[in-house]
Amino acid sequence: MKRIYSFGGGTAEGSAADKNLLGGKGANLAEMSSLGLPVPPGFTLTAELCMDYLDSLGGTGFGTPPDGPLPDGLIEEVDSAMATVEEILGKRFGATENPLLVSVRSGGRVSMPGMMDTVLNLGLNDETVAGLAALSGDERFAWDSYRRFVTMYSDVVLGLHRARLEALVNDLKRTKGITADVDITADDWKTVVPKMKERVRDSLGCEFPETPADQLREAIKAVFRSWNTARARFYRKEHGIDDRWGTAVNVQAMVFGNMGDDSATGVAFTRDPKDGKDVFFGEFLVNAQGEDVVAGLRTPQPINRDAGGDASLPTLQEVMPEAYDQLDAMQKTLESHYRDMQDIEFTIEKGSLFILQTRRGKRTGAAAVRIAVDMADAGIIDRAEALGRVNEEHLNQLLHPSVAPGADKTIIAKGLPASPGAATGRVVFTAEKAVEWAERGPVILVREETSPEDIEGMAAAVGILTQRGGQTSHAAVVARGMGRCCVVGCSDIAVHRDGSFLARPREQAGKEWTIRQGDIVTLDGSTGEVMLGEVDMSEADLASSGLETILGWADAAARLGVRANADTPGDAKTARDFGATGIGLCRTEHMFFEGDRITAVREMILAETPEETIRALDKLYPMQRDDFVGIFEAMDGLPVTIRLLDPPLHEFLPHDDSEIQSVAAAMHVPVSRIREQVENLREFNPMMGHRGCRLGITHPQLYRMQTRAILDAALDVKAHGGTVEPEIMIPLVGVARELELLRGVVLDEASTVFERRGESIEFRVGTMIELPRACLTADRIAAHADFFSFGTNDLTQTTFGYSRDDARFLQTYEDPAVGVLPGDPFVSIDVDGVGTLVMTGTRLGRSVKPNLKVGICGEHGGDPRSIAFVHGVGLDYVSCSPFRVPIARLAAGQAALGDVSA
Amino acid sequence: MKRIYSFGGGTAEGSAADKNLLGGKGANLAEMSSLGLPVPPGFTLTAELCMDYLDSLGGTGFGTPPDGPLPDGLIEEVDSAMATVEEILGKRFGATENPLLVSVRSGGRVSMPGMMDTVLNLGLNDETVAGLAALSGDERFAWDSYRRFVTMYSDVVLGLHRARLEALVNDLKRTKGITADVDITADDWKTVVPKMKERVRDSLGCEFPETPADQLREAIKAVFRSWNTARARFYRKEHGIDDRWGTAVNVQAMVFGNMGDDSATGVAFTRDPKDGKDVFFGEFLVNAQGEDVVAGLRTPQPINRDAGGDASLPTLQEVMPEAYDQLDAMQKTLESHYRDMQDIEFTIEKGSLFILQTRRGKRTGAAAVRIAVDMADAGIIDRAEALGRVNEEHLNQLLHPSVAPGADKTIIAKGLPASPGAATGRVVFTAEKAVEWAERGPVILVREETSPEDIEGMAAAVGILTQRGGQTSHAAVVARGMGRCCVVGCSDIAVHRDGSFLARPREQAGKEWTIRQGDIVTLDGSTGEVMLGEVDMSEADLASSGLETILGWADAAARLGVRANADTPGDAKTARDFGATGIGLCRTEHMFFEGDRITAVREMILAETPEETIRALDKLYPMQRDDFVGIFEAMDGLPVTIRLLDPPLHEFLPHDDSEIQSVAAAMHVPVSRIREQVENLREFNPMMGHRGCRLGITHPQLYRMQTRAILDAALDVKAHGGTVEPEIMIPLVGVARELELLRGVVLDEASTVFERRGESIEFRVGTMIELPRACLTADRIAAHADFFSFGTNDLTQTTFGYSRDDARFLQTYEDPAVGVLPGDPFVSIDVDGVGTLVMTGTRLGRSVKPNLKVGICGEHGGDPRSIAFVHGVGLDYVSCSPFRVPIARLAAGQAALGDVSA
Repeated sequence: MKRIYSFGGGTAEGSAADKNLLGGKGANLAEMSSLGLPVPPGFTLTAELCMDYLDSLGGTGFGTPPDGPLPDGLIEEVDSAMATVEEILGKRFGATENPLLVSVRSGGRVSMPGMMDTVLNLGLNDETVAGLAALSGDERFAWDSYRRFVTMYSDVVLGLHRARLEALVNDLKRTKGITADVDITADDWKTVVPKMKERVRDSLGCEFPETPADQLREAIKAVFRSWNTARARFYRKEHGIDDRWGTAVNVQAMVFGNMGDDSATGVAFTRDPKDGKDVFFGEFLVNAQGEDVVAGLRTPQPINRDAGGDASLPTLQEVMPEAYDQLDAMQKTLESHYRDMQDIEFTIEKGSLFILQTRRGKRTGAAAVRIAVDMADAGIIDRAEALGRVNEEHLNQLLHPSVAPGADKTIIAKGLPASPGAATGRVVFTAEKAVEWAERGPVILVREETSPEDIEGMAAAVGILTQRGGQTSHAAVVARGMGRCCVVGCSDIAVHRDGSFLARPREQAGKEWTIRQGDIVTLDGSTGEVMLGEVDMSEADLASSGLETILGWADAAARLGVRANADTPGDAKTARDFGATGIGLCRTEHMFFEGDRITAVREMILAETPEETIRALDKLYPMQRDDFVGIFEAMDGLPVTIRLLDPPLHEFLPHDDSEIQSVAAAMHVPVSRIREQVENLREFNPMMGHRGCRLGITHPQLYRMQTRAILDAALDVKAHGGTVEPEIMIPLVGVARELELLRGVVLDEASTVFERRGESIEFRVGTMIELPRACLTADRIAAHADFFSFGTNDLTQTTFGYSRDDARFLQTYEDPAVGVLPGDPFVSIDVDGVGTLVMTGTRLGRSVKPNLKVGICGEHGGDPRSIAFVHGVGLDYVSCSPFRVPIARLAAGQAALGDVSA
Repeated sequence: MKRIYSFGGGTAEGSAADKNLLGGKGANLAEMSSLGLPVPPGFTLTAELCMDYLDSLGGTGFGTPPDGPLPDGLIEEVDSAMATVEEILGKRFGATENPLLVSVRSGGRVSMPGMMDTVLNLGLNDETVAGLAALSGDERFAWDSYRRFVTMYSDVVLGLHRARLEALVNDLKRTKGITADVDITADDWKTVVPKMKERVRDSLGCEFPETPADQLREAIKAVFRSWNTARARFYRKEHGIDDRWGTAVNVQAMVFGNMGDDSATGVAFTRDPKDGKDVFFGEFLVNAQGEDVVAGLRTPQPINRDAGGDASLPTLQEVMPEAYDQLDAMQKTLESHYRDMQDIEFTIEKGSLFILQTRRGKRTGAAAVRIAVDMADAGIIDRAEALGRVNEEHLNQLLHPSVAPGADKTIIAKGLPASPGAATGRVVFTAEKAVEWAERGPVILVREETSPEDIEGMAAAVGILTQRGGQTSHAAVVARGMGRCCVVGCSDIAVHRDGSFLARPREQAGKEWTIRQGDIVTLDGSTGEVMLGEVDMSEADLASSGLETILGWADAAARLGVRANADTPGDAKTARDFGATGIGLCRTEHMFFEGDRITAVREMILAETPEETIRALDKLYPMQRDDFVGIFEAMDGLPVTIRLLDPPLHEFLPHDDSEIQSVAAAMHVPVSRIREQVENLREFNPMMGHRGCRLGITHPQLYRMQTRAILDAALDVKAHGGTVEPEIMIPLVGVARELELLRGVVLDEASTVFERRGESIEFRVGTMIELPRACLTADRIAAHADFFSFGTNDLTQTTFGYSRDDARFLQTYEDPAVGVLPGDPFVSIDVDGVGTLVMTGTRLGRSVKPNLKVGICGEHGGDPRSIAFVHGVGLDYVSCSPFRVPIARLAAGQAALGDVSA
C-alpha cells in the first residue's frame, strides 16, 4: 500500500481521480501538476494511512486520542518525498541558506470546517530565519513570518490557544505606545519570538521544537489526530460524514513573491470576468505577497494591455516577459482542460513561475452569458452545458439594475428581499406624494404596509419599502408584477406618523438613523438591504450579448411552457417581450382596485337588494370588458387564463374610521351601513375565509358578470381579426361540486352571450388547485375541468399551516443551526409535502383525463428549483411574473437537459 | 309474467322480498298481509308492467309522454283483483249501497318525492256518495270526501292545478262570510262539487269521469306516466336512480273509522315510547278518522289501563273487547316479527279491525335504552343489535336536560348549536354579573364573543349565548368541556353596550324582541334555538335503567379506547365517572388564563431579557405542577396526554386600549411596552401563525418549564403511592425536525429533573398530527414519536382551507339544493379529504413503527360517524369532551360490531 504521493515538477503520482485517497486538495494539486503546471512541489500522506495510524493508537474513540509514534518506516518515506521536493526547487529543508519551508494542511474527501487549520512556514527556527532574511533581503518579513509560524504551530499542533501568544504582541505594543502591527520593527519581533517560546515552555512544560524534521513529524501526527477531536466528530455526525474516511495531509513547499524585483504575485482570469470577452485578464504586484494584493495598499498592475487597466503602469508582459509567456501558455492549458473560465493565483519567486491555485472564475451575469455562448459556439462545451453555466442570479443582474460589486454602502436596515433589482430615490411616505414628486426625480415609497389604494404611488416609485408583511404581501406581489425593486417586512424600521422613519438595524446594535421625507436612500430588492444615500449601480443590460441566444437554446430544449402572471395590457406586453407564451394567471381583483371602480365594487358589497347588486355589477361590466380587450389584444394568438374574483370582499372596504367616513360621504350612504358591513365581513383568518369559489357560489352574479365581460371582450377582439384563447379559471376549489356548480354558471352565462351576439368562441373552464383537499380529490375535480393550475402559494400555506404574512418564525427555521427547513418553502417548493400533493393532484387528475393541461402559477413558477421539480412531475407549463420569464425559460431548458442526461 | 299481486284477508301473493317488483309500499303491504294481519285488501300492479306500458307508448323520452291504452288484458286482470277485494270486504266497487272506495298510490323501490301523489276515495260519484253518506250516517262527511276526491283526482290524474278548484271553495266562503272549513255544511258542499266538475270541463275540455272503473283505469295510467315527467327524471338524475326501475301502483280499499259507534281509529305502541316499559300502549277515538286523532279536538282514550292514561275515559278493551283482543294479539305478532317496538295505526270499521300501517316506533332516549336492553335480555335481539338501536340523540337526552317534546316555545333567535342540553335563566352580559347573580338563581351569560377572562362567569352560568364565533370558538370549546349548554355565532342577535340585546330572527321577518339584563330566556344547545322565558324541560337521567348495561356491552365490543379531553382535575373526574380510560388531550393553555397566572404569562411575553423570561416562568412553574398533580391524582392508573402550549402568545395579551392600560398599571410597565408587543405579535391569520411547536422552538424555556412541571408532578404523585402515565404531546408538527428538536429538549429537561430528584418515571413523547404536511411525512415524524394523536379540527381547517370561526358560507354549502357538502366537516370527519390524510398518516407512521399508538383528539373524537371511520382506519383510541364520553363509548362499540357483521 502506497502511503505517500508526490507532486510537482510537472508530474504527479496521483490525479483528480484519487480524491478519496488524497482528499480534495491533494487530488487537485496532483491533477494540476500532472497537467505540467509548475505548482509548488510537495507530497500527500493518504487518508488510509490516517486511519491506520489512528487505529494503532487505540483509545476509547472519545476525547482527544492518545499520542503515539508514526507507523514503521514512514519517517523514511517522508524524508525521501522531501528529498524530491528539495531537488525540484534546489533548496533544502532545514538549511540555513536558501532554506526550504513548507505548509502542512489537512484535506479530506469533503471540506470539513471543524478540522485542523493550516501551518505555514514550517521549517523556520532561529537559524533558518536568517536564511529567509538573506534570501528576501527583508529581515522584518523573515522575523514576522517566524513569529507567525510559532503562533500557528503552538496553536494548531501543540494546542496552546493563539491568544496566549498574541498577548505578548499586545504587551509589546503597549510598552512601545503603538497600535498598528506595521509599526513593529524587525528588532521588536526578535525580542517577541523568544518570549513566545518561553511561554510555550511555561504553559505546556515542553520546549518548542527547533528541528524542522521534528516540527514536520509532529505536525503530521497532529493533523491525523485532529480527525478524532470532539469538534470534528460532532461536525461529521451533523453532516453524515463517515468516521472511517480519515483525512489526508498535504506537505507543500512555500514559495514567495517578495524575494526581490524578480519576484511577484498576482491573480489572473482566462477571460474578462466583467463582460466575458475572450481576453487574458489579470493583475499583479512586484516583490509582494498575495495578501498585499488583497490589502489594496499598492495599486496592482495589469498583466497585459489586452483588457485595459492603468496604462501608466508597466505590465507583467513588459517587466517579466518570460514568466508572462509561461503564464499565458498555462492559462490556455487550464481553460481548455477545465472547459471553463479559470481564476488563477500565481507567484513568481526569483523568476520562477508557480501556480498556486486554479478554480472556476466568478463572473458577472453579462460575462456568464457571453462565456457560455462563446464556448458553445467554439465547440468547447455543448449547449446543454452552456445553459447550465448561467443561473438565476446572472439573469437578474441583466434584467434589473443592481448594486455594483464592492460599492461603498451604509446599510441602515435589512428586510425581506421581495422583488429583485436596486434603486435610489427620495423617500416619500404616501402614494400621493410619490406620484407628485416622481415628476421631479426618482422616489422610494415607504409605507408601514401597502394597500390597494397605493397602487398608483407604487407605479410612480422606483422602489418600495414596507415595515410589515411577507413575501406575498400586497406590496411584494404588486411590486414583482411591476418589476419594481421592493423590500418588505423590514422590522428594522419604524414608520412614524410625522413623515419620517427610524432605522435601527438589529445587526448593528445601538446604531440608528432618522430618515425624513426627501432624504435619499437606496434599496436592494435582491438582498433586502436599505442603504443610506446613493450607491454605485450596475445598470440592467437586456441587450446583453448572447442573452437571446442562450434563452433560445433553453426554449428549444424545454418541455415546460413559460407563461406570465399579468393583470394589465402593459404587464402582458412586457411578458410577451420577455418571451412568455401566454398568460397563466390574470388576477381580476387588481382591476377592481383602480380609480372609480373601487366605488362600484363597494356599491356591490353594500347592496341590500338584488337590484342594487345588479346595478353595481352593470357599472363594473364595461370596465372589466375593456380590461380584457386590452389584454387579449396584447396576447393575440396566445392563451390567456383569467382567474375569477378571489379575495374576500372585505379587502375592498375601507378599514379605519376616517376612511369609512370619507367613503360614506363619497358614496352618499350612512357611515353605519359601511361599518355594519365591515363588521359582518370581518374574518379571524381571512386567508381561509370567504373567498375564491366560495364567493362565486354565494355571489353567482359576480362570476356571471366577469364571464360576460371576458367573452364579450373575446368576441370584440375576434371581430377585429384577433385570435383569442380565453381560459376561465375558478379559484380555491376544494370540493368537486364547487367546480361543477360554477362551471354550470359560466357555461350558462356563455350561452346567453353567444345567443345575444349570434356568434361564439372556443374557451376553456378550469380551476386552481391550491388546497390539500383539491389535490386529494383531483380525480373528481378533473371531471369538471379543462385544465388545472396549481396555486402553490396557498397550497404551501395550507399544507404547512403557515400564514405567509405572519411566518416570521421561518427565519429561525431556516437557520442552519436549527435546521427545520432547508430554505423558505414559499421561494422553492417543498418537495416532500407540497410536492407530494402536486404529484398526487396531477396523477389523479390525469387518471380521468389523460390529456388534462396542468400548470403552476404560484410564486414557485419563477423559481428554478421548483421549475425543475414540476418538470419532473410532467406539468405542461409554469407561470411567473413578467420579469422572471427569462429566468423561468432558462430553468425550463435546464430542467429538460438535466432530465435527458440523468 | 305476473302483472298484478293481490294482498288482504290474511294472505298475499307477494312478500317483503319483492321490493324491486312491487315497490317498497307494495312489498310492505304484502308482508303484513302474509303475517295474517287484517290490512285493508288491495292489489299491486308491478314496476315491470310500468316499464312495459311506457315502452309501448313510444315518445322522445322528453316532456310528458303521450297517452295510450293499457296492455291487452290488463283491465280484465284489474277487474279480477278488484273482485277479490270486494269479496274480502263484502263491498262492491261502484255500488250505490255499501260502496267500495279505493286509494291509488305510486310506489317505487326507493321513495321519490318527485312522483305522483296519492288519490284517496276513488270510486266516488254522484251515486256512490249517497251510499257513503248512508253508511256513515254523516252526509257532510260524505260530500266533503267527494269534493276532496274531485280536487285530488283533477290535480293528480287530469293535471288541473288544485288551486283552480280550491278557488271555488274560497268563493263560497266569501259569499257566506265564513272563514273556516268546519262552517261549511253538507248542502254547501253539494253546490260546490258540480261547480268543480264544470270548471274541469271548461279548463280541460273533457268531462270529469263518473264511472269508477274509468277513474281507476285513468289513475293507473297516470301513475305509470308520472314516472317519466320532467320533475321525476330530474329527481332521478340528481339521486342516481335508474330510469328503468319504474314504479308500481298500489290500489287498496279505503276503510273508515267514522262509520258509527262500532267504528274507531287509533295509534298504538307495542311498548311505552316514553320510558320503554314493556306494556301495550295506545290511544283511540270512537267514530273518528285518523286526522281527528291528530287534530286534537277530542281527547283520545287509552286503549287499556296498563300504561296509565285518563282513568275517567273508557278504554278500547272496555268498549270493544273483541277488537282489542285482536289488536293485542296482532301487536305481539308484529313486535316479534319485526323484533322492535312498533308504532301501529289501526282503524275499526263497523267492528272489523284493520291495520293500516306498522313501523318502527319513535321513542325517547330512556325508552330506547330500556327497550334495547330488555329485548337483548329476552333473547329477541343480540347485544350487537341492541347497541345499534341506541343513538347519539338518545344518549344526549339522558346526559343533559332537554326541551320537552311538544313544549310551547317562542323562538326569538337561532344560532349554531355548540354544546348540547337546554337551560333557562336570567340574562347577564358580563362574567362578573354572572358570578354575582348565580348565587340567587340560574343565569344565562350573553356575550358578543367570550375570551379567557370570562371563564369564571361561564362556569357560573347554566348556559352561554354568543353573537359571534363558530363551533370551535372559545365559548364553544370551553362550554363543551364544562358540559354547559351553549349557542354561538347567533347573528340573529345584536348585543348592545347598554346591557341589552336585540333579537331579530332571520326566519321571522320583521319580528324583534329587546332582552334586558334580568329577563328570562331559554337556550337549546342541541338546536341553537333561543327562546323567550321558561320552557318545559325533560331532565337529564344519568341513572336511567339500562344505561350502564348497554355502555358495558359497547365497551366489551369496542376495539377503540375512549379517552377524554380534560384540562382540570374536575373535568378529569367527570370524564372518569363517564367511563373514560384516560385523558387524550389536556390543553395547558387553559391553565394559563386563570387568576394571577395570566399576569405571570404576560410577564413572560413582555420579558426583554432571558433573566426576565426565566423569572416569569419560575412563577408559573409551581402553579402548573400543582395543576398536573390534581389531574394525575384524578386519573390514577390511567394515561394522561398533556399538550404543551399551543396558542399564539398574543392570545394572552390584552386587546383594546382600556385593557392595555389597566394591565400596564397592574404590571407596573409602560403602556408603550405592552402596545409594542401587541403590535409585534399581531397576526393576519393567527390560526396559521406562530403557535404550537413553533413556539416551542423559538421559546424552548417555556416547553422546558412545562416538562419540568409535568415530571415533578408525576414524581410527587408517585411518591404518594399513585400510578402515573404521563404522555407529553408536541402540537402542530409539520416537519420531522421540529419534533426531533423538541423531543431533545423534553428528554434533556427530563434527565435534569430525574437527576435532581434521584428517581425517574416512565413517560412518552408524541405529537399531534394536525397539518397535511405532517400526514404526508408521517414516516419521518414517527421516527421521533412514541404516539400520534390526530388533531382533526386543525387538520380539517388546513385541508379545506377553512377558518372554522369564519366559515359562515358553510351554511350555503350544506344546503341540499347547493349540495357542496353533505354536512359540516367540523362535526363529522370529511372521509374523502381529511380521512385520506388520516389514513396516510397512520399508514406511514406505522410503516416505521408497527406498534405506534395512534388516537384522535379533535371534536370528531365524540362524533359517531367519525368514530366509525377511525375504527375502520385502525386507530387505538378517540378522545372527546367528558360529556360525550358515553356517546363515544357507544359509537366505538357499534363500530366494532358493524365491522364484525360487515
